[in-house]
Amino acid sequence: MSFQNPVFIPGPTNIPENLRKACDMPTIDHRSSLFGQILHPAREGVRRIIKSTDAEIFIFPATGTGGWETALTNCLSAGDTVLAARNGMFSHRWIDMCERHGLDMRIVDVPWGAGIPADQYQDILTADKDHAIKAVLATHNETATGVKSDIAAIRRALDTAGHPALLFVDGVSSIGSMDFRFDEWGVDAAVTGSQKGFMLPAGLAILGLSQKAIAATHDATLPRTFFDIRDMAAGYAKGAYPYTPAVGLMNGLNTACNMLLTEGLDNVFARHTRIATGVRAAADAWGLGLCAASPDLYSDTVTAICTPAGFNATDIVTHAADTYGVAFGVGLGDVAGKVFRIGHLGSLTDVMMLSGIATAEMCMADLGLDIRLGSGVAAAQEYYRAHPANTQRDAA
Amino acid sequence: MSFQNPVFIPGPTNIPENLRKACDMPTIDHRSSLFGQILHPAREGVRRIIKSTDAEIFIFPATGTGGWETALTNCLSAGDTVLAARNGMFSHRWIDMCERHGLDMRIVDVPWGAGIPADQYQDILTADKDHAIKAVLATHNETATGVKSDIAAIRRALDTAGHPALLFVDGVSSIGSMDFRFDEWGVDAAVTGSQKGFMLPAGLAILGLSQKAIAATHDATLPRTFFDIRDMAAGYAKGAYPYTPAVGLMNGLNTACNMLLTEGLDNVFARHTRIATGVRAAADAWGLGLCAASPDLYSDTVTAICTPAGFNATDIVTHAADTYGVAFGVGLGDVAGKVFRIGHLGSLTDVMMLSGIATAEMCMADLGLDIRLGSGVAAAQEYYRAHPANTQRDAA
Amino acid sequence: MSFQNPVFIPGPTNIPENLRKACDMPTIDHRSSLFGQILHPAREGVRRIIKSTDAEIFIFPATGTGGWETALTNCLSAGDTVLAARNGMFSHRWIDMCERHGLDMRIVDVPWGAGIPADQYQDILTADKDHAIKAVLATHNETATGVKSDIAAIRRALDTAGHPALLFVDGVSSIGSMDFRFDEWGVDAAVTGSQKGFMLPAGLAILGLSQKAIAATHDATLPRTFFDIRDMAAGYAKGAYPYTPAVGLMNGLNTACNMLLTEGLDNVFARHTRIATGVRAAADAWGLGLCAASPDLYSDTVTAICTPAGFNATDIVTHAADTYGVAFGVGLGDVAGKVFRIGHLGSLTDVMMLSGIATAEMCMADLGLDIRLGSGVAAAQEYYRAHPANTQRDAA
Amino acid sequence: MSFQNPVFIPGPTNIPENLRKACDMPTIDHRSSLFGQILHPAREGVRRIIKSTDAEIFIFPATGTGGWETALTNCLSAGDTVLAARNGMFSHRWIDMCERHGLDMRIVDVPWGAGIPADQYQDILTADKDHAIKAVLATHNETATGVKSDIAAIRRALDTAGHPALLFVDGVSSIGSMDFRFDEWGVDAAVTGSQKGFMLPAGLAILGLSQKAIAATHDATLPRTFFDIRDMAAGYAKGAYPYTPAVGLMNGLNTACNMLLTEGLDNVFARHTRIATGVRAAADAWGLGLCAASPDLYSDTVTAICTPAGFNATDIVTHAADTYGVAFGVGLGDVAGKVFRIGHLGSLTDVMMLSGIATAEMCMADLGLDIRLGSGVAAAQEYYRAHPANTQRDAA
Repeated sequence: MSFQNPVFIPGPTNIPENLRKACDMPTIDHRSSLFGQILHPAREGVRRIIKSTDAEIFIFPATGTGGWETALTNCLSAGDTVLAARNGMFSHRWIDMCERHGLDMRIVDVPWGAGIPADQYQDILTADKDHAIKAVLATHNETATGVKSDIAAIRRALDTAGHPALLFVDGVSSIGSMDFRFDEWGVDAAVTGSQKGFMLPAGLAILGLSQKAIAATHDATLPRTFFDIRDMAAGYAKGAYPYTPAVGLMNGLNTACNMLLTEGLDNVFARHTRIATGVRAAADAWGLGLCAASPDLYSDTVTAICTPAGFNATDIVTHAADTYGVAFGVGLGDVAGKVFRIGHLGSLTDVMMLSGIATAEMCMADLGLDIRLGSGVAAAQEYYRAHPANTQRDAA
Repeated sequence: MSFQNPVFIPGPTNIPENLRKACDMPTIDHRSSLFGQILHPAREGVRRIIKSTDAEIFIFPATGTGGWETALTNCLSAGDTVLAARNGMFSHRWIDMCERHGLDMRIVDVPWGAGIPADQYQDILTADKDHAIKAVLATHNETATGVKSDIAAIRRALDTAGHPALLFVDGVSSIGSMDFRFDEWGVDAAVTGSQKGFMLPAGLAILGLSQKAIAATHDATLPRTFFDIRDMAAGYAKGAYPYTPAVGLMNGLNTACNMLLTEGLDNVFARHTRIATGVRAAADAWGLGLCAASPDLYSDTVTAICTPAGFNATDIVTHAADTYGVAFGVGLGDVAGKVFRIGHLGSLTDVMMLSGIATAEMCMADLGLDIRLGSGVAAAQEYYRAHPANTQRDAA
Repeated sequence: MSFQNPVFIPGPTNIPENLRKACDMPTIDHRSSLFGQILHPAREGVRRIIKSTDAEIFIFPATGTGGWETALTNCLSAGDTVLAARNGMFSHRWIDMCERHGLDMRIVDVPWGAGIPADQYQDILTADKDHAIKAVLATHNETATGVKSDIAAIRRALDTAGHPALLFVDGVSSIGSMDFRFDEWGVDAAVTGSQKGFMLPAGLAILGLSQKAIAATHDATLPRTFFDIRDMAAGYAKGAYPYTPAVGLMNGLNTACNMLLTEGLDNVFARHTRIATGVRAAADAWGLGLCAASPDLYSDTVTAICTPAGFNATDIVTHAADTYGVAFGVGLGDVAGKVFRIGHLGSLTDVMMLSGIATAEMCMADLGLDIRLGSGVAAAQEYYRAHPANTQRDAA
Repeated sequence: MSFQNPVFIPGPTNIPENLRKACDMPTIDHRSSLFGQILHPAREGVRRIIKSTDAEIFIFPATGTGGWETALTNCLSAGDTVLAARNGMFSHRWIDMCERHGLDMRIVDVPWGAGIPADQYQDILTADKDHAIKAVLATHNETATGVKSDIAAIRRALDTAGHPALLFVDGVSSIGSMDFRFDEWGVDAAVTGSQKGFMLPAGLAILGLSQKAIAATHDATLPRTFFDIRDMAAGYAKGAYPYTPAVGLMNGLNTACNMLLTEGLDNVFARHTRIATGVRAAADAWGLGLCAASPDLYSDTVTAICTPAGFNATDIVTHAADTYGVAFGVGLGDVAGKVFRIGHLGSLTDVMMLSGIATAEMCMADLGLDIRLGSGVAAAQEYYRAHPANTQRDAA
């Protein structure tokens, strides 16, 4: 493994040097007070990053998938009705998890590339006079399609319908990279992992739960132990943990939060938008469309690019890995073979991104697509030059 | 955090230099073939360490607690009867998890410090003519009391009773440090974590499942997704993973297995016995008894030492941390305040251990116990001198 | 410091992950046998890389400049005559060092951008009937101008003249990256550092000395202690060192040699030629000439690119650092402001190089040069596509 | 290499975790402004640690031996007279270096184990009416014998004699661990390395020069280039370096200075005295004397312990390495075989030290010396308990 080229997958991201070092920690006694000095600042950092004043933050040694399960099993009971939209592989998987836990799903299927249809949600919620629906799921950023959905609109749908369902948001590929407003949007459960906006290795499921969600845990009967927030909360109150914590990763999380907050969240989000816009300019220069159906849906963390009909987009990803040692993302599920994905979240500069664009260009040319070498690079260069980074500030 | 002194907690252990480096890995694409080159050798290494030829090995980004949950939820259904002995905090917690998952527990309570009573198991199993009991739990090494139980005897109890129940063994603080014979003992699920015998940071739940256990998963109805071995197995077959794996830790696990197997398992176990015997010699020199009721129960990974009546053993642990910067383990549950624990598993030399013994000695003297300085050290020195390590070979 | 972008300076290079880890070593006792297990393999590795069978290899905790001083002070006496060509800043500095040590310099000045004129050397040597010239200096690769000189031709000049002078070669920016034939070229002292072809941090001066050079040390009277090879040789004979060695760096050197030899020297050199050719293709696409006067002089480790008259080439370097966080090399001495330099030695891929080319392109456009964005990138892409790397093999 | 046990050699020391990480730095452009942000704070930190307000600090990629050479070659000319005392291997080697550089030595030989005789210095200086003596050498802490000399007394000798000679002090094994008062003692050159009190890997020579010493450089004619402070000073003025600096180590030095100054120098020195006193208590309990002739000479960084006549003290060191994997220091030169040395400088706790004492004890018993196991440990424990460390403060 040569580790020379950056990765351009939509997470795990390239890990900044100081986060590598923060995670690479010798063993401490996790029952000593040192642990609390890592745990609580890390939780506070996450809370600030999701823009909440009173969300309870939980950190599990797991992944975002475990975070989904934590939200479901702590707040719901078998047979509960849950509303969810399916617009990509990750929303699909969360729905699948619900079904496997015996939840009664109301699924809104939309084309992969579309956002979550808040209006349909509103209609369904309005019609649900008896409030059978206990939770509404929303994938903030569909990593499979590069589609960002409007969570504020979903909150409005709930409010307009006067519906008390909990709002669970998958922020795995948005939190820490794109604006996330837990309190303002009335989110009840926000789920993410360590390996995306926090730029760490995978290994932590990170959740914010509203007080309303926490209240719901009292009646929730889905079985849980590893993911039980009651044990977590009891541990946290003593600066402790219900089992052995992943201390190094949590130290990394604390450091990552400090990095992001020091840079300033607005700067972090602007940095992501800037890098992403360059990628989209490149795609445009190549004459290729995006999977995301319209500009308001464009994700700033991952771009899924459509290749011409009859061409297997996965070949680009395979060829990039085999020939140039560069990792992109394949299309998944409904868009398998139709798109390839460029991840551009976390620790990334315009200069690094240009090497990814240049690589994609070479791959497409190698595979016979009608792509002029340097064209996407030039489009991105033009954008990056016109919108220079603040190199003094952009820490990550 | 000064990180100067070794830790003497019963896991996480001191992490060897090369495992620190193996875990501290830049991001790779976990959907590339590189990942399979880490995953499969790590699984094979674990299989060899638990001495199995056909166990399926599963590695989750979780902890031993998640491993327990994996075994239960994949093989059992709500209402199933489970037999378990409670002889310490960790067996207690596993039982608690069972109850929270709606299992019907048959609990054999014995004094903390005793081993699992195979004879009582046999009586109960023999009496269970209808085979209502679906699984038998056994904690191989009770980390809370420093008690090693005889798993072979439990297998004999099952066989004598002609009982088909699955045998689930918690090997968290034994596997990789003490002999564990998956096939010979007819174990159906062996559970451990990364932070004990494998000498890594916490963050992996590691399981071996027998083919019989895997067959049981088809009928098991406890809800599960994150811990579902079916998704894992489907991923493994393609060198992949059902969600984002903790690649660095898995690379560390692969490296750790190589270290242990290169050293030779018999040498690894003898090394643990050697270090442990020195600790026990020190306790004897201090005139203090062990929590473990008899020598056949003595654990080679952790020693729980009883302090005189009226003395709060936890003070030793607090004082060691505050005054000498050294971490020992407190007594938990029934033995809280009655014992303190010295962990001696994983990467540890006689020389390191002597500093732990010397520290315990200072603490006890500081706190007014009638301990002659140097006495425990001398007893351990005597043993270590008479049984020298193979410094060329002892790699960890 | 964000450490995100690769550096494109002509050394120190980007450090491969495994060399970072090899250098980051805990303290060992450098008087123990462990040290010899690092020292001797490292020396043997260097010997093989410079293609010698009997050169004595010396490794000092210093830099290439210290290596120059080692060659001079161990083999020469004050007042000795030394022949040297000056064709760039680094040959200039070595000459300056000679003068400061009281050597009598015969200097051949040529334009910066030219190679060493072997024919002039031959004339001078032939005319030196009394063999007053004790040493001939040659800078194999002038890092300041990106000019590679023909050492074999200089050896022929010496041989044709029948002159016994020692041949001292500065291989700082060539050894480990470009072909260096110590024995075949009759080199008497080869000098390099750790931070170029060996891809390590700066901190080691590395020399190969012929037996003839070592014989010369007996009569050499220039004062020396730190750089005295007699103390070194006496230490080496016992697996030891005359003072405290930089053990971690030496462990890194040993590892680096293994990497290079495992990859195969011909592959290493071809890899450098490949990356360099892409850079030269970019310069050509930009319509810019090289400082190196003719293709036979083109260096495979660094390219000095001439900018139009009236333009301050240093602005590119400053702008790249300030605006894009990318490091290139400025012109030095005679070519200050006239060239900027792109380093392309050591651990570098085509993909990384494209980001450097793209950055240079943006800088030049930003600064008003008539450069079409994407043009240099496209030229390099074309070359790299037509000459793909062996990604399985190219380890560094 | 297992790296488990601490080392107990008198440098290089055990490296603190955060210094490991500070040194393990990716490549930066050493010609960029980033370098100055490391260089100047590191120099300022060293200046504060040697307690000077206007010493010029120089940092070379070399070792303490290179530091000695820097002091000599920059301030002296061939044939200059130099006064020096020889009371151990390191003072011996500095004298040898002087002789090899053509200096005219006036040597005061005293028994190894004695301090520098300030009175003899005074007599010689007083007698030197013509001020032929240009420099006086003093080894502050003789690492070979564990003897600390009184530099203030030597300054008084110079002053009493009214002698203008420069005062050069070898502070290699004292600076950063024991009190060093550059200004108060009128030191003209203080020499140390990175691997002792600064707790870093070897690879930096660190010097403080008085303005008087710098003035002397104008007339000094010993040849020098690599170690020429004029090139260094010219570079420093621009935040640069005359050749490629060892950036990572310098970053480590900067971090180390911050650690020491944050802890507080008085605390650092007291910490060393505390650890050393425990070692001396152990030696006393063993019935063994020290090489240092009297308590006022006892070094707080290394203790040389005399073994009984007829016993080869080096066997202890060999046996400790072979049997217990622990590194002590052998006796050198005149005291070879007569003493073994325990290094106790830099990053070390009482708990770590006890393991070293316990190991020495085992070795001596193994080799047939009449040592009661636990006796030295108990004596050190007694001292450490009575003089507890400030675990909150003692950072290193």
